[in-house]
Amino acid sequence: MSSQNPVFIPGPTNIPERLRHAVNMPTLDHRSASFGAIFKPLFPGVKKVLKTRDAEIVIFPATGTAGWEAAISNTLSPGDKILACRHGMFSHRWIDMCERHGLDVHKLTAPWGAGAPAAEFQAVLEADKDHEIKAVLVTHNETATGVRSDVGAVRKALDAARHPALLLVDGVSSIGSMDFRMDEWGVDVAVTGSQKGFMLPTGLAIVGVSQKALKAMETARLPRCFLDFRDMLNTNPKGGYPFTPPVQLLFGLGESLKMIEEEGLENIYARHHRLAEGVRRAVAAWGLKLCAHSPDLYSETVSAVVVPEGFDGTRVVVHAADKYGVAFGVGLGDVAGKLFRIGHLGSLTDVMALSGIATAEMVMADLDFPIKLGSGVAAAQEYYRGTAAALSKAA
Amino acid sequence: MSSQNPVFIPGPTNIPERLRHAVNMPTLDHRSASFGAIFKPLFPGVKKVLKTRDAEIVIFPATGTAGWEAAISNTLSPGDKILACRHGMFSHRWIDMCERHGLDVHKLTAPWGAGAPAAEFQAVLEADKDHEIKAVLVTHNETATGVRSDVGAVRKALDAARHPALLLVDGVSSIGSMDFRMDEWGVDVAVTGSQKGFMLPTGLAIVGVSQKALKAMETARLPRCFLDFRDMLNTNPKGGYPFTPPVQLLFGLGESLKMIEEEGLENIYARHHRLAEGVRRAVAAWGLKLCAHSPDLYSETVSAVVVPEGFDGTRVVVHAADKYGVAFGVGLGDVAGKLFRIGHLGSLTDVMALSGIATAEMVMADLDFPIKLGSGVAAAQEYYRGTAAALSKAA
Amino acid sequence: MSSQNPVFIPGPTNIPERLRHAVNMPTLDHRSASFGAIFKPLFPGVKKVLKTRDAEIVIFPATGTAGWEAAISNTLSPGDKILACRHGMFSHRWIDMCERHGLDVHKLTAPWGAGAPAAEFQAVLEADKDHEIKAVLVTHNETATGVRSDVGAVRKALDAARHPALLLVDGVSSIGSMDFRMDEWGVDVAVTGSQKGFMLPTGLAIVGVSQKALKAMETARLPRCFLDFRDMLNTNPKGGYPFTPPVQLLFGLGESLKMIEEEGLENIYARHHRLAEGVRRAVAAWGLKLCAHSPDLYSETVSAVVVPEGFDGTRVVVHAADKYGVAFGVGLGDVAGKLFRIGHLGSLTDVMALSGIATAEMVMADLDFPIKLGSGVAAAQEYYRGTAAALSKAA
Amino acid sequence: MSSQNPVFIPGPTNIPERLRHAVNMPTLDHRSASFGAIFKPLFPGVKKVLKTRDAEIVIFPATGTAGWEAAISNTLSPGDKILACRHGMFSHRWIDMCERHGLDVHKLTAPWGAGAPAAEFQAVLEADKDHEIKAVLVTHNETATGVRSDVGAVRKALDAARHPALLLVDGVSSIGSMDFRMDEWGVDVAVTGSQKGFMLPTGLAIVGVSQKALKAMETARLPRCFLDFRDMLNTNPKGGYPFTPPVQLLFGLGESLKMIEEEGLENIYARHHRLAEGVRRAVAAWGLKLCAHSPDLYSETVSAVVVPEGFDGTRVVVHAADKYGVAFGVGLGDVAGKLFRIGHLGSLTDVMALSGIATAEMVMADLDFPIKLGSGVAAAQEYYRGTAAALSKAA
Repeated sequence: MSSQNPVFIPGPTNIPERLRHAVNMPTLDHRSASFGAIFKPLFPGVKKVLKTRDAEIVIFPATGTAGWEAAISNTLSPGDKILACRHGMFSHRWIDMCERHGLDVHKLTAPWGAGAPAAEFQAVLEADKDHEIKAVLVTHNETATGVRSDVGAVRKALDAARHPALLLVDGVSSIGSMDFRMDEWGVDVAVTGSQKGFMLPTGLAIVGVSQKALKAMETARLPRCFLDFRDMLNTNPKGGYPFTPPVQLLFGLGESLKMIEEEGLENIYARHHRLAEGVRRAVAAWGLKLCAHSPDLYSETVSAVVVPEGFDGTRVVVHAADKYGVAFGVGLGDVAGKLFRIGHLGSLTDVMALSGIATAEMVMADLDFPIKLGSGVAAAQEYYRGTAAALSKAA
Repeated sequence: MSSQNPVFIPGPTNIPERLRHAVNMPTLDHRSASFGAIFKPLFPGVKKVLKTRDAEIVIFPATGTAGWEAAISNTLSPGDKILACRHGMFSHRWIDMCERHGLDVHKLTAPWGAGAPAAEFQAVLEADKDHEIKAVLVTHNETATGVRSDVGAVRKALDAARHPALLLVDGVSSIGSMDFRMDEWGVDVAVTGSQKGFMLPTGLAIVGVSQKALKAMETARLPRCFLDFRDMLNTNPKGGYPFTPPVQLLFGLGESLKMIEEEGLENIYARHHRLAEGVRRAVAAWGLKLCAHSPDLYSETVSAVVVPEGFDGTRVVVHAADKYGVAFGVGLGDVAGKLFRIGHLGSLTDVMALSGIATAEMVMADLDFPIKLGSGVAAAQEYYRGTAAALSKAA
Repeated sequence: MSSQNPVFIPGPTNIPERLRHAVNMPTLDHRSASFGAIFKPLFPGVKKVLKTRDAEIVIFPATGTAGWEAAISNTLSPGDKILACRHGMFSHRWIDMCERHGLDVHKLTAPWGAGAPAAEFQAVLEADKDHEIKAVLVTHNETATGVRSDVGAVRKALDAARHPALLLVDGVSSIGSMDFRMDEWGVDVAVTGSQKGFMLPTGLAIVGVSQKALKAMETARLPRCFLDFRDMLNTNPKGGYPFTPPVQLLFGLGESLKMIEEEGLENIYARHHRLAEGVRRAVAAWGLKLCAHSPDLYSETVSAVVVPEGFDGTRVVVHAADKYGVAFGVGLGDVAGKLFRIGHLGSLTDVMALSGIATAEMVMADLDFPIKLGSGVAAAQEYYRGTAAALSKAA
Repeated sequence: MSSQNPVFIPGPTNIPERLRHAVNMPTLDHRSASFGAIFKPLFPGVKKVLKTRDAEIVIFPATGTAGWEAAISNTLSPGDKILACRHGMFSHRWIDMCERHGLDVHKLTAPWGAGAPAAEFQAVLEADKDHEIKAVLVTHNETATGVRSDVGAVRKALDAARHPALLLVDGVSSIGSMDFRMDEWGVDVAVTGSQKGFMLPTGLAIVGVSQKALKAMETARLPRCFLDFRDMLNTNPKGGYPFTPPVQLLFGLGESLKMIEEEGLENIYARHHRLAEGVRRAVAAWGLKLCAHSPDLYSETVSAVVVPEGFDGTRVVVHAADKYGVAFGVGLGDVAGKLFRIGHLGSLTDVMALSGIATAEMVMADLDFPIKLGSGVAAAQEYYRGTAAALSKAA
């Protein structure tokens, strides 16, 4: 695998030079005032990205999976009932985690390619007169299928049902790349990681916790210690950490937040939309379809391309890696073999995206897919050149 | 805090150039064969450092605290009785974690400055005729007090009591720097992290799991998912990972293992002993004492220097940071204010150690400690120059 | 200008990770044995790249221009007559340098797009019965026009004329990327730099000096000191340097030589040919022509694309930088505005090349060039996919 | 040689993290607007460091030796008479260079350990009624002997003699570390490099050129091209460069200038004085003497320590490298073996300096010098702790 080519996996993303430098820092005493000076400004910065004023931010030296676990173990107790829908690998895994923690999951299912079913959620919630359901789980962006769910609609479902359940949202592959509104959507715990929209190496689980979730925390009885919000909330405000913090990644997060501030969140969303739309134009020009069932569901960070009947999406990925040194994503779980995924998030340009599209074309041609070389590239070029604003000259 | 000066905290350590370069790698697809090629060789390498043939190795994207949690949550069930001794901040915290997980801790206490009490352990174990105690916890190197406990003696206590309890050992600040013998001592779970003997940034919890612990895992009912050994053991052998792995740190670990192999474990222990002994000579020349009660307890990775009556060890640390840009460790918990700590582990030379000793002297002189400038340095110089083998010329 | 996109200038090239790490080394005493251990192995390594057994190698902390100057000032005396042909910006500049040093240049001219005229050289040399001409200058690869000259043919011209003049060759943008045979072609001074085939930052002038040139050196009277071969030859064999050496770049050169050794020179030439041919297929698909007059002259490191009448090649470059953050080369001197240049040398993959081709297409479409989007990409894709060997899996 | 220890050579200096990151940048098109944006701000920045308003700045991709050559070849013609004094290795070498360029050097000599003899210069200049002397050369800081010459006094000598000769000054190891006043002292060409006060890797010759020198340039007939001021002055104002610029180092220079601006030149001088004085206190405590004859001559960037009769300074350096992995400087030329040199310039702290002093002590003890271990360290500690202002907390 050539380290010269960009990656087109749906995270970890390509890391910008500036963040590579930031995380490449020498050891700094995490009990010193210097650490606090780096650490404390992260909180207001992350809050802006989550679009929250009221939530607390907790940052663990771990991954998004730990963020999921923190979301449930800090707010729920053994045997608690929760509501969730399985419609992709990542919603599936979160549900599995809940069951392994002894939660009682009311599981809906939807096709892989559909979003979280707000209307069905509402029906279930309305039927739950005794408010036994303590939390609703939503995967904002199903990385496995390239589907964005409508979190706002789930909030409306909760409100319509006048149901007090917590709304826990996996925003790992959306936050910082796609519009996410913690306060407006009434999200109680929002989970993300360092390696997607923040464009850093893997290693931080970043969690927003609403005041309502903080209240639930006080009575939550699932055991936790490494992932306990309370130890963080007790030490962080003074610049402290309950154990050894990942100083390098935290420093990188500070730099990432500066980059996000400089580009502007709305500009970042627009850039992701533009890159994604170029990829989608290419897919259409190939005569192929996305896994996502309709345009309102299209993810801006990853496109899952359904391969024609009789072809194998996994072979696309293996062949691209072996022959061209380029990384795409395979289909996972229920859609294994049925698709391949092109990630287009984080630090990426239209020029880089074109090299991914061109590579996918070569691979499909090599594997005798019925596609025309250059067709997808041309469609993406046409779109990109019509939508490119003059780029900032700054490197 | 000057980034030009070495740090003298008991971890994270100074990071060698080679490892700074290794972890500064671009994004690599963690589902590719390239990742497996990096990942799979880590296991035999870590096993050599733990001195085990039979254990399985699990590496979490987390810290040593998560390693502690994994050790208990993968082997124990709610309400299980365990045996531990509180004799420093880190043994204290591990006990606290156990209690927060609903374990029933039989707590012994020993003075901060003493080691784990093998004889008392034996007495308790012998009294436990029904083998209700499921695990014994030992902190191999109490970072807070600079005390090395005799893990082999605890094993002998277990054996003498013919007790089947698991032996869980925190080796975070010893493994890779001080002699550690997982198999010989019959350690069932050994916990360490990336940021000490492995000389890397914080972010990996590295855990060795004996066959006996693996057996206990099958019936252990403490909930876990992010830190579940099973998901790791099911995926790692094929080069897979149950969620997004910390690729950069894992690549760094590979390079760290090469460095350890090149220097040789016994040479590394000897280097740590030499550096530590130089610091101890300096402490003696100052007329001060270590927190550790006797030489057999002396840690080779950190020296906790007891300040004279009426002086404040925390001020030493704050003053060193503010005036000289050098990081030492403060006293924690029961010994807060009573000592300051000089870390001397990981990537360190005698020349660097001398700058730490010289700084500590200046600080103590500034704070009117009754010590003579240059006295500790001279004692350490005398020792270092008498024990220096010709260094390898390689950078 | 985005630092995420590759550059497509004809040098400096994209720098591979491995070389970025190599040159990012801390200060090392250049008078120590450690320096010699790095420095001395460079000489046999460079000799292999130049394909010479007999020459001496001299490495200045400077650029290729300094290499040109060293080539003449170490072998010639004021007023000496030399023979050269102006057929591009870089041959032009070397001639200008000679004149500024008081040399008497017998100047031929050839069209920009032609190579060095071996037959005309021969005629002039044969007419020079008194051997007043002391040196013949050849620019192996005219970066300005994308033209490779036939150095072997010039050697034959010298031999046919039984003329003793030195053969001085600028191989800055060819050596390490295109076949170069110092000994076989009887080159007396070969000049290159760090920032092309060696894939390093700018800062080393690397010069091969034949035994015949060394002899000429003894009587050469052009003043020189910083660029004097003698000071180098007197100190280098012992690992010394006549002044402060550029340690970081020299260490990088060592690593570059290892990379070249690992890939193999012939494989490197083949890779450059393949990348170049893909670009040429794209140019043909656009219906455009190269500046080089015939295929035997095609450079493997840079393609100069002639723009249609009425269009401005410089605008292509400016527009690509401004709108897409991609760097191409402008036309220089006599061909300013008439062409734009696509560099394809050093550390480059087919996937990266495709992003450059795709960008050039978008730019030309934006500027209303009569080209079809995707056409060049498709031609290059077709060629690349037919010629890709399975890539090494190593990053 | 351990890369973990600081170096104590009189340049290249230890490179701060920030500058290591700055020079570690990917390739950027040097013909783009992005390059100009980096390049053009360097000139006002360098002028501040040289303390000049009127001079032009020229920056070559080369070393200080090239700066010397540029100084003479751009202002003088073959056979021109110049005045210089040989009192150390670097003044010796510059004189040698002049002679190799065919200049007629009126050579004075002074003991190695003395400064440039302003009074003798004045006498010679007054005797030169026809103003045949075209330039006076002064080595501001003789790195070989640790001697600072009084450039202002030489200016006064020129003025007193009403002599129009140019004043050419080697400030390689002083500028940016010690007070240097180009305009006030009427320096016509000031030469420095990247690897000393600017704390960068070797590779830039930085030259200030007065208006008077620019005038002399117009008639200067020494041949030059690579080092020609004119090509630089013609292209630089537009952000251009006459050949491939060393982009990485230039970017590093920009960052270095920011660091210098932030610390403040006077603070930098004060820091160097403090570090130097600590070393001198140590030398005095050892009962040894500096090579510099009197305190007014003491260099602030390097101390040349005279070894006792019967001892060998070179062995100190070799032994320090072999046994302790620490780099000091040997005696050069006339003082070879008679001294060893401790560099204390650029990016250095008191704590780092103490490790150098402590190492020198161990080495001398190992070699049976009559010195007392810890004595020099104690003297330096006493001085440092009495003079340390609270350090900035910023890393």
